Amino acid sequence: MNKRGYSCAVEVAVDAIAGRWTPVILAHLKEGVHRYGQLRRRIPGLSEKMLTQRLRRLEADGLVERRVHEDDGEVPAPVSYRLTEEGQSLAPVLQALYDWGARRAAERGIEVPDPVD
Amino acid sequence: MNKRGYSCAVEVAVDAIAGRWTPVILAHLKEGVHRYGQLRRRIPGLSEKMLTQRLRRLEADGLVERRVHEDDGEVPAPVSYRLTEEGQSLAPVLQALYDWGARRAAERGIEVPDPVD
Repeated sequence: MNKRGYSCAVEVAVDAIAGRWTPVILAHLKEGVHRYGQLRRRIPGLSEKMLTQRLRRLEADGLVERRVHEDDGEVPAPVSYRLTEEGQSLAPVLQALYDWGARRAAERGIEVPDPVD
Repeated sequence: MNKRGYSCAVEVAVDAIAGRWTPVILAHLKEGVHRYGQLRRRIPGLSEKMLTQRLRRLEADGLVERRVHEDDGEVPAPVSYRLTEEGQSLAPVLQALYDWGARRAAERGIEVPDPVD
């Protein structure tokens, strides 16, 4: 993924979750399995193309697992996403980002919806 | 900084520390005050132009404080950077990124130098 050497462990982590949206997607999946359409609704600022790209990258990096529910009888078959074990190990990072973001939002009067279904 | 609404507190945090290098710079400053040249040496993958840009953005966002040491008698006067109180509040985020990156690097045989002076 990266031919240069790393100068700091933080770079390794940032390489895996880099980008504005990747941590946001991971934070939603941390709360449980999501169907594709649920993720779309939860992250209205992210286009369908970008969401698909990010999910593919996360799958390739071993952080997210994609499942096609053929046996549900629905057409097209629903697709769901969940964190792999490696993805779940990011929980402390995602929680720390959430906590800090929530505090900063409160201090600056930035409105952020509560996590809901 | 952002005219769209946020859909998740994680977005607020990512907005503040976004980019490949910003968390790396913050992680070094978390360990203490650095002169400009020290930061340059610690992050060899980052160009002088990019480092300066990132530091200016961090200063504007209230996370980093820049100090010019006029009274040191050196020419040009040395410049140092330190985390503000708000920047220091990112410590749990930076520590979680560091821990996860160090574990992933160890598992994948990626070499990362130990933090040293």
